[in-house]
Order: sequence, then structure tokens, then C-alpha cells
Amino acid sequence: MKEIYLDNSATTAVLPEIAELMTKIYTQDYGNPSSMHNKGVEAEKYIKEAKAQIAKVLKVRDAEILFTSCGTESDNMAIFGAAHALKRKGDHIITTAVEHPAVLRCMEALEKEGYRITYLGTDKNGVISLDELKEAITDKTILVSIMHVNNEIGSVMPIEEAGALIKSIDRDILFHVDAVQSYGKFRIYPKKMNIDMLSVSGHKIHGPKGTGFLYINEKVKIDPLILGGGQQGNMRSGTENVAGIAAIGMSSKIMYENLDEDVSRMYGLKKRLIRGLTKIEGVTVNGVADQKDESITEAENDPKILGAPHVISVSVKDVRAEVLLHALEEKGVYISAGSACSTHKKTESATLKAIGLDKKLLGSTVRFSLSILTTEEEIDEAVTAFTEIVPVLRRYVPH
Amino acid sequence: MKEIYLDNSATTAVLPEIAELMTKIYTQDYGNPSSMHNKGVEAEKYIKEAKAQIAKVLKVRDAEILFTSCGTESDNMAIFGAAHALKRKGDHIITTAVEHPAVLRCMEALEKEGYRITYLGTDKNGVISLDELKEAITDKTILVSIMHVNNEIGSVMPIEEAGALIKSIDRDILFHVDAVQSYGKFRIYPKKMNIDMLSVSGHKIHGPKGTGFLYINEKVKIDPLILGGGQQGNMRSGTENVAGIAAIGMSSKIMYENLDEDVSRMYGLKKRLIRGLTKIEGVTVNGVADQKDESITEAENDPKILGAPHVISVSVKDVRAEVLLHALEEKGVYISAGSACSTHKKTESATLKAIGLDKKLLGSTVRFSLSILTTEEEIDEAVTAFTEIVPVLRRYVPH
Repeated sequence: MKEIYLDNSATTAVLPEIAELMTKIYTQDYGNPSSMHNKGVEAEKYIKEAKAQIAKVLKVRDAEILFTSCGTESDNMAIFGAAHALKRKGDHIITTAVEHPAVLRCMEALEKEGYRITYLGTDKNGVISLDELKEAITDKTILVSIMHVNNEIGSVMPIEEAGALIKSIDRDILFHVDAVQSYGKFRIYPKKMNIDMLSVSGHKIHGPKGTGFLYINEKVKIDPLILGGGQQGNMRSGTENVAGIAAIGMSSKIMYENLDEDVSRMYGLKKRLIRGLTKIEGVTVNGVADQKDESITEAENDPKILGAPHVISVSVKDVRAEVLLHALEEKGVYISAGSACSTHKKTESATLKAIGLDKKLLGSTVRFSLSILTTEEEIDEAVTAFTEIVPVLRRYVPH
Repeated sequence: MKEIYLDNSATTAVLPEIAELMTKIYTQDYGNPSSMHNKGVEAEKYIKEAKAQIAKVLKVRDAEILFTSCGTESDNMAIFGAAHALKRKGDHIITTAVEHPAVLRCMEALEKEGYRITYLGTDKNGVISLDELKEAITDKTILVSIMHVNNEIGSVMPIEEAGALIKSIDRDILFHVDAVQSYGKFRIYPKKMNIDMLSVSGHKIHGPKGTGFLYINEKVKIDPLILGGGQQGNMRSGTENVAGIAAIGMSSKIMYENLDEDVSRMYGLKKRLIRGLTKIEGVTVNGVADQKDESITEAENDPKILGAPHVISVSVKDVRAEVLLHALEEKGVYISAGSACSTHKKTESATLKAIGLDKKLLGSTVRFSLSILTTEEEIDEAVTAFTEIVPVLRRYVPH
């Protein structure tokens, strides 16, 4: 059976050319970048090239890129590192109620250490209010952490406006952005957007799992999370994952090579999918503006209207998300029930609650997520499968 | 030019069959193990298999293996995790003066937090004294962390005896062993050896960089280092590096398949190398017992006499280590000046100081390190190159 993989916000396939590069590094150019001989120098070249590739995309300096083992580590490093480094300045941190657990769990741990955390709410489309952010900032605020694109519903936060606002109030407040779902889909310029730290994961952009990076503005000093041999300027010890680093560099380059075209195509697919799925009664889309208006599917490719180009959150009245997921799976279509970034959890989604979703729909919401590899044919087949399945599943719902 | 890679304690080549498995996972079986659909289940199977492969080697339960991003993260997790979890019980930790920086830097950070650290010295072969360990233990001791094989000179610590001693005094003291240099060369049975936590790195055993694991006895509760989606039983969040995990499982299996034969062969090569190198005047070997006795090269394969099978530390009177390293490199022979696990550091080796090496030799010590791929021919060619180079380099030494 043909696989139609529409769970790209959970993880993506590694592109063959990236896997090939990694194999070359694994088996031939396997030196330790800390080694003084040529095999070490050779390995370090891959790291330098990856830094340059990423720095070019972000328009930052090469030295501002630190490689980590995943987006989660990047988030932990940024949040704990900043909070601990700035504890003499203040004890207040601002974040949102709809962050990924990689941010939320750190905040909860910091609360136990005595920090005070403000969680910003969102509107019905999952977007924070800049006024609420402004009001939350105090003279004890040391850090603001806001995700760029929500992993469950694809809402896009106004990070550029937030950055400008924060710095207009106090230039010393650090601004961290979890860009795990947005990097590779949006142009992100930390310098222009007043972002001090930016977390990215490799496996969401057709790179390998076990890779990530944290951009840190060179003027910002945070505490390292992992100590040891002093690699990466003492900020992240441990022998560098050379193959993984080369891979995240290459996938960064690939994702931004034809960005406008790819994003425009994905928006086209997103609208096509929304059009197809919402033909069925009782199917609603979360995280897009004025969703009841049918013209949404004719809307311009504006993130404020359509959200991110690759995430489509759909609530299906009277159908259990898990049941729908497995029924679609039987037809070769892979999607996610809510977010798949957390492990097999049965807890209700904080994001879906924050946008005020009807309680009855909390357990009836699924996520489709696209990548640059997704085709129109796949979208049409997914719509066909969904259209066949939903009425069948509804027959068995106890009323 | 043919490459003779004798820097395997810095890092090893990934075996082709392991790189092949990883490519399959990267490009085909790329699911997120947290996904509920079949591509997630498929990914999780690789993790389960790797756990089973490692658990079989260590004779422990599968659930006692936690995957990390490197040996350094494993060490950080074990040491910080144990210290913080047990701070109510006590504030005293024992380690050795010759640990890897991944352990030493954590200890220094804990000292700043208020913990008291005792650093055990070593004898001239780099081995701690059990009497000194016994005397160091107090009723405030919560953790003992001892490396199994020293990364610079290959000395082998009496971890089984240390484990028995610690637990005979206080069963609640946790015993952590950094096995980064010994796993794959020695049989290690944590249950029998009273080891509560064991750190391992993938790239020292022909697996990829960016992989590692920490064995933790199921009865031991430590604090996690990285928080988020709750993967790995909440002990290490972040999407699992499935390919890397499968790789460290496979390399574990391979390393222990013919262990006795491989180790015996490496000891043969070690003795052959020592025999060849020490023919030159002013060349001495560190970390092996009674090194002046020529019979060392006829000794039985006893770690107490010969140290670990794969590490050979050599001091070369009147020759700078870096100069020798680069001269050998020009002949295609790759070795290390001291340890290459730390990044380009010019600081003097704590290990070489601890064994009381003549100060004049501190900057004149190099490390050869072998792997299961090393051949007799390579050893002979390395000896030939060394024999040609050393007298030439000595001509230019100012007396």
C-alpha cells in the first residue's frame, strides 16, 4: 500500500542526499573535530560549513550558532541558561500557555526554583495579544519565550512585533523563540526581529533526529547545560555529532533554496485540504482566521489568515481522534491526533483549551502536516479516504 | 597515501553495516516513536531492539537503559541527577583526579553549589587505591564516580572491588562508572559489580557521534537533565534519535560478539607496538606495570599489568608531542597528543601529573589507540614511521 505521510510536524523523512552525506562522514571522514591531525581538521570543516550555511539563512554570525542534540535541548539550554545567568537581575519570566512541553516543563521547573512565570493566553486562533505581553512585563522580567509556530494548530505568533515591544521597554530582557515548527517555512532574521535565542530541530526539516541548534546573540551570556571537554566554546561539551551537524546545515540550505515557491505550494495544498475536508458536515479547522467563511480557501497566503503553510488542525464532530487516525492509517494515510511531540499522552491539549475549543471537540481533533515532499495527489487521496471514513465512524457513535 | 588510524580512543569509524542501517531508518523508517500510527510503532521497535541488545550485554533489564546524545551527557545526567536528587541525604561526593573533563567539570560546578568533592589520587600506573577510597567515605557521602578505563593512559580501575567496598559501607551511596573507554573492550555487569549508573558513548565503539546511553539501576531515582515531551519515561525528553539508537545497539552487539578474540588480538598488537616503540632510547610507556622490565611485552593479557587492550601512552624524551603527531601524520599515521577528547587545549594533563610523570615529559607524551579494525601491518608501519621520525626530530631539540 502506498504511504501518504501527512505527519511532518511530528517528524520528516531524511532526504536521500543528506543520508548520503552522513554515510560519507560516518565511514570515511569520521575524525574527531578536537583531534589535531588532519582527520580532525577535516571533521571540523564540516562543522564550519554547517555553521556558515545556517548563519547565512538567519543573517547572523557563524559563531552565534551552537549545535545541540535536539530542539528540546535547545529550549532547555536557552531557558535554564538564561534564567540562571540572570537571576541576580530578576525572577520573572513570560511565556505562553500554548508552548511545546520542551518549554513548559522548563518553566514549571523554574517555578519550583522560585522564579515567577506569566503564561500569556491566546485568541481563538491561537495567537497571543501584544497588549497582554506589554502589560505582563515588569522591572523583574528577565526572559520572554514565545514559540513562532504552534505545533498543534499552526498558528503564527507575531514574534517580530513582540521582539520590538520587549526591547522598547527593556533592552536587557532576553527574547527566546522556539522556532522548531517555523524554521524552514518562514524567513527568520534574529537581528532584525530582536531575537536573542532561537531553537531549531533538524528532524522537522528533512534532517536527522538527534540534531538541533540554538542561535545565541554573541552579546548574550547564558549558563551551559552540559559540561565537559569544552567543545563549542565551552557552551556545549561532548564530541560534536559531525554527520548530524553537516546534515542540519545541508537541510537548512535546501529548505531555504526555493522557500517562496515551496511555501506557496504548501499553502495551495493546505487550502486544497481544507476545502476537501470541510465539505463534510461537522468538520472545522482550528488556527485559521474566520474559518466559517468559505472564502478562507481562496484567501491569500497570509500567515495571519491561514496560519503556517504546513499545519492543518481539524476537529471532527462525533469522531474520536484516535479512531480516525487508525482508520486513516488502514488506508495508508498517516496523521496525528493532536500533537505527536509528546509521548503517548492522554492528557488534553493545552493549546486546544487555550483557543477555547468546544470541550466536546477536544478529543476529536486531528492534525495533518505537510512538507516540501507532499504532492497534490496525496492531498486528494487523503481527502478521499477521510470522506469515506468519517460517515462510517459516525454511525457507531453513541448519541 | 594509506591512512593508519591509531586514534580510536578519540573516535572510531562507523562500520559500513551500521551506516547502512542508519540510512534505512533515515529515509524509510523515519517515523517519530511517539506517533500513534504504524510509522511510529515501527520506529519504536528499533529502540526496543537496541535496548534489548545493550541489556543483554550488561545483563540488566531493558528498562534500565536510557539513551542520551553522548557520553558527556550521560556523565552530566548521572552526576548532576544523583547529586540533586540526594542533596537531602548528604553533600559529599568522591571521584578521582584522573577523570574525563565530562566528570571533572560537573564536580567543579557542584562544588560551587556547595557540595564537597574528594578527588582520589592514583599510583604511578594511574590506578586508585581502595584504601584511600575507603577512608574517603563519610556518612555524608552520596555518590562515588570512578572511570573504568582512563582515556589518556589506558589504566584500568578496580571498579568491581570499589563497588563492593562502597556498598559494604553504605548501600545508599550511588556508584557511577564512566565506561566510555571500556565498554566494548571489557565485560561489565552492573548488577554483579554494584554499579548504579554507567555512562557509555556510541562513537568509541564504531557507532555514530551524537549517541550514548546511561544505564540506571531501576531502583535508583535521579533528576532528569533535559525536560519536555516526557520521552524515555520522563527521564530524557526530546524525540529519540532512532537511527543513532539502533546504531549503538548494533555496535554493542558487534563489539561483544567476539570480545575475547578481539581483545586478545588487541593485546597482541599493544605488546607488538610497545616492543617496537621502546626499542628507541628515551621512549617509555605510561599506564602499564613495571614498564622498565622488557618482559612486559611477553606478559599475559592481564589489565592489571598491561592496562586496557587498546590504549598505549608513550613519552618520548626530547620530542614535542605536537611535533611528533604532525610528523607521523605526514606519513599517514594518526595519533593523539595526550587525550583528544578535550578541544584543542594546551593545558597540562591531570592524568599525567597524577601518575607523577617527569615534568619534562608532560609535553612529550602521545597516545596510540587501537580498535577491532587495527591490523598487525598497520602497527608495523606505525613503528617504522616512529623509528624513522624520532631521531630526526631529536636533532632539532635545543639542549
